[in-house]
Amino acid sequence: MTRERLYLYDTTLRDGQQTQGVQFSTDEKCRIARTLDALGVDYIEGGWPGANPTDSAFFETAPKTRARLTAFGMTKRAGRSAENDEVLATVLNAGTQSVCLVGKTHDFHVTTALGITLAENVENIARSIAHVVREGREALFDAEHFFDGWKADPAYAFDCLKAAHEAGARWIVLCDTNGGTLPREVGEITAEVIARGIPGTTIGIHTHDDTGNAVAGSLAAVDAGARQVQGTLNGLGERCGNANLTTLIPTFLLKEPYASRFQTGVTREALAGLTRASRLLDDILNRVPRKAAAYVGASAFTHKAGLHASAILKDPTTYEHIDPALVGNARVIPMSNQAGQSNLRSRLADAGIEVAPDDPRLPLILDEIKTREGQGYSYDTAQASFEIAARRILGQLPTFFTVKRYRVTVERRRLPPDRTVTLSEAVVVVDIAGERKLSVSESLDAEGNDRGPVNALSRALAKDLGPYQSIIDDMKLVDFKVRITNGGTEAVTRVIIDCEDGQGRRWATVGVSPNIVDASFEALLDAVVWKLVRDGAPVSGKA
Amino acid sequence: MTRERLYLYDTTLRDGQQTQGVQFSTDEKCRIARTLDALGVDYIEGGWPGANPTDSAFFETAPKTRARLTAFGMTKRAGRSAENDEVLATVLNAGTQSVCLVGKTHDFHVTTALGITLAENVENIARSIAHVVREGREALFDAEHFFDGWKADPAYAFDCLKAAHEAGARWIVLCDTNGGTLPREVGEITAEVIARGIPGTTIGIHTHDDTGNAVAGSLAAVDAGARQVQGTLNGLGERCGNANLTTLIPTFLLKEPYASRFQTGVTREALAGLTRASRLLDDILNRVPRKAAAYVGASAFTHKAGLHASAILKDPTTYEHIDPALVGNARVIPMSNQAGQSNLRSRLADAGIEVAPDDPRLPLILDEIKTREGQGYSYDTAQASFEIAARRILGQLPTFFTVKRYRVTVERRRLPPDRTVTLSEAVVVVDIAGERKLSVSESLDAEGNDRGPVNALSRALAKDLGPYQSIIDDMKLVDFKVRITNGGTEAVTRVIIDCEDGQGRRWATVGVSPNIVDASFEALLDAVVWKLVRDGAPVSGKA
Repeated sequence: MTRERLYLYDTTLRDGQQTQGVQFSTDEKCRIARTLDALGVDYIEGGWPGANPTDSAFFETAPKTRARLTAFGMTKRAGRSAENDEVLATVLNAGTQSVCLVGKTHDFHVTTALGITLAENVENIARSIAHVVREGREALFDAEHFFDGWKADPAYAFDCLKAAHEAGARWIVLCDTNGGTLPREVGEITAEVIARGIPGTTIGIHTHDDTGNAVAGSLAAVDAGARQVQGTLNGLGERCGNANLTTLIPTFLLKEPYASRFQTGVTREALAGLTRASRLLDDILNRVPRKAAAYVGASAFTHKAGLHASAILKDPTTYEHIDPALVGNARVIPMSNQAGQSNLRSRLADAGIEVAPDDPRLPLILDEIKTREGQGYSYDTAQASFEIAARRILGQLPTFFTVKRYRVTVERRRLPPDRTVTLSEAVVVVDIAGERKLSVSESLDAEGNDRGPVNALSRALAKDLGPYQSIIDDMKLVDFKVRITNGGTEAVTRVIIDCEDGQGRRWATVGVSPNIVDASFEALLDAVVWKLVRDGAPVSGKA
Repeated sequence: MTRERLYLYDTTLRDGQQTQGVQFSTDEKCRIARTLDALGVDYIEGGWPGANPTDSAFFETAPKTRARLTAFGMTKRAGRSAENDEVLATVLNAGTQSVCLVGKTHDFHVTTALGITLAENVENIARSIAHVVREGREALFDAEHFFDGWKADPAYAFDCLKAAHEAGARWIVLCDTNGGTLPREVGEITAEVIARGIPGTTIGIHTHDDTGNAVAGSLAAVDAGARQVQGTLNGLGERCGNANLTTLIPTFLLKEPYASRFQTGVTREALAGLTRASRLLDDILNRVPRKAAAYVGASAFTHKAGLHASAILKDPTTYEHIDPALVGNARVIPMSNQAGQSNLRSRLADAGIEVAPDDPRLPLILDEIKTREGQGYSYDTAQASFEIAARRILGQLPTFFTVKRYRVTVERRRLPPDRTVTLSEAVVVVDIAGERKLSVSESLDAEGNDRGPVNALSRALAKDLGPYQSIIDDMKLVDFKVRITNGGTEAVTRVIIDCEDGQGRRWATVGVSPNIVDASFEALLDAVVWKLVRDGAPVSGKA
């Protein structure tokens, strides 16, 4: 049986950027585009060329993707031709294969927000789409406020769709812009649109989560015949967010009737990378991943109730609706039991540390990890720190050097009339095989700007590590993230540091302390030690 | 027209307690019960008496509520009578008016997890419910794994329901325990159950969010005829959580067809307390409220896109599906590089700053905001810093004091044999009306732990602000977020600080610098100045 094609349209880089507090850089947009492409979505909406410098820059530097890169814009304004609308021209100049134009379909918005006649709006839609098609591009029409428009005046709302359809739009996307339409209504109205003559194979659905129903609304539209679904990774988006593709993708691939009926661009293999893709986005945004997220959340397969956990051990299907491995997620059950330990062993094996299944140190490592996670450490992201903690318990961690003390000072002064100058300085004292080494560093960069206390500390630590110096010389701190978490009763700071070396390896470490400098220093030390272990540094002696 | 009664059953205190990381104290349970009662739910499931000490203690000290307090337990075990089952006895001994018993309805679970015959299980259900009824209590039957059971063997699953119904259960609750059933199927199966003879007015629905459809599944069951809905505040619960009552309640009260058709125990007045109830729970759990939460999230009525913001100013219904005040929430129009001047004016108006539409300083403010956002500032979140930047340009920012210099030192020493001690110290020098004030602070908390350089700086700054001291005394730093961003060519640190004061106000400020201490200090200064402006502090003189 041939399955019908269902298309996935991602708008993380456009509508997702409307999320409060989200501001992607061009480089971040490129990283996210590559992630989406690896996942297998069909369309990547990259932004609105001309609307802001980042979006414009992204289209100039966007990576080559299998997915169709799509530029977003709006239909031409009244009183000028599509050819002479400079906003539309900028969108087309981005040179993408597909172009998505948003236009009004709700009479109230046409007269209130645009202040033009209903007929003018229909003409704007038709001419704009026709222009995109004439330019040899694939055209999509985003029917803004469509469901509210339909409820107010179905004939007019439909005329708008028809104008776009007849002008050659490949997709007519029904948007629930304000997010207030419930799934049942989304399904009924979508079915009516199809009944009036616009084929389901050209209809897309774009929902928002203002009533917590964005996913269900998308499913209702697909049930009614729509064949393109728009959404974002992790449900980013304006207000309560867009339909969450991270939820919809596994539903389409794993749940009936969708799994048997539809073919998407996402393979089962790519699906296993879903959890990682979700975490990567949170990483870029410095967000704490939502534990309760469907399919990919850290709690999604966590079985806390005692009865559930013991049943899970007999048969995982008793309390799991899917196998977590299918989406790259993992089952979490109380640490003391068998499954927890086998998880741990496979994680250690990933780090090249082989431990027998009955090794008595396995529960010790589990206890230590659990205790530290309770204090605020996060070993999900900081795999290198996890390795170091495990090696310490296994007796596989040499003492390369010992830090005896450090001191870091930040001083800011006001210079007349209205300037300030800041200077950071760090002193680090280490002991290497009985030899005491004092290093001091400032943190001025090439332009004479102060880079702060962590930079000063990192420089002082790396300044003279004696026999290890050559090994750490190619190490570079590339990212630095700080979160306040609750370790026990008091708030503590969690610092995660990403390092890279000349071989292109990248590793993450974690430090936790009420003191941000202390937490940073701990993560920094782990990063250096990890590199020494991995590069097989010889041990000079004990401190 | 009389409206049908729709019952709300809250299980925050029972299923909500299965959330990873959640462990209520008895006192917290009492506070939550009072909040739920004020909201107007019909049932409060308080826990499982006998399962753990907290649950048992709660039933002894539970507040008097209008809502029916309900004890949860399970049907009696095979091989003993209901009267002699001590687990069931403990549940009944809690003395609640209503008792909810969970029992199996999925053949696979009966034979695999319980290891008893199918007939024995049906008998256990019937006898247990009959016993509860004989004791003069209202009985509820939670049909565990009902939807999966129905799919495996509809006849058997229905027999279980029928046994409970005939034994006198007031409610038969269809549970999608594993959360994998999609809304359409929930609706269809619920309709079939009703068609086979169990009245909709005795049917409840209990869903989980494992496919992001818990809310939609509940709506589908109500559409099919169910008249009790189970859920939790903020969607707490095992794995991905239960159906979110914070989302369902406003949907039932404000959205059609529910609003016209149903009567719930929640009044419009109580609905206006919904956002506060949601925040209170997060407060108790020490969780960061989810910004994107439907109806009650801080972003739920936040309009970031420039086009949306300008339309909202003309008419809020253009981009809002309900009036945020109905659920006690508020509209937010944040600053961002997508914002226009209308956005800016309304943001200023929110801060009590009125500027005429043609004021030539508006573009100056916009330019300044855009320039600073290019450097890494983020005014979306940091509204208080935005106000200060705007006031500075408008000439509405008094110079309360000037910081002449500061110095902060962090020192860590190793103490033999294997301990370390860290100490932070800050000196801040300010000028208030020509008077120079030197303050020094450590950052030791009550337990003698060092809280780090930002804490030390904050203490030193707040130690002696002369005439302003009484105004800032109730100020508290409650959150601190750090991010590395690219400001121009070099990486810089962005610090966002959240403060609260005794009036319950909460405000956010931002600082940006390559130096994390400097960035923090900038945000800290803005926070203090904002408070002085808002509280109308008199200006002592110029520095």
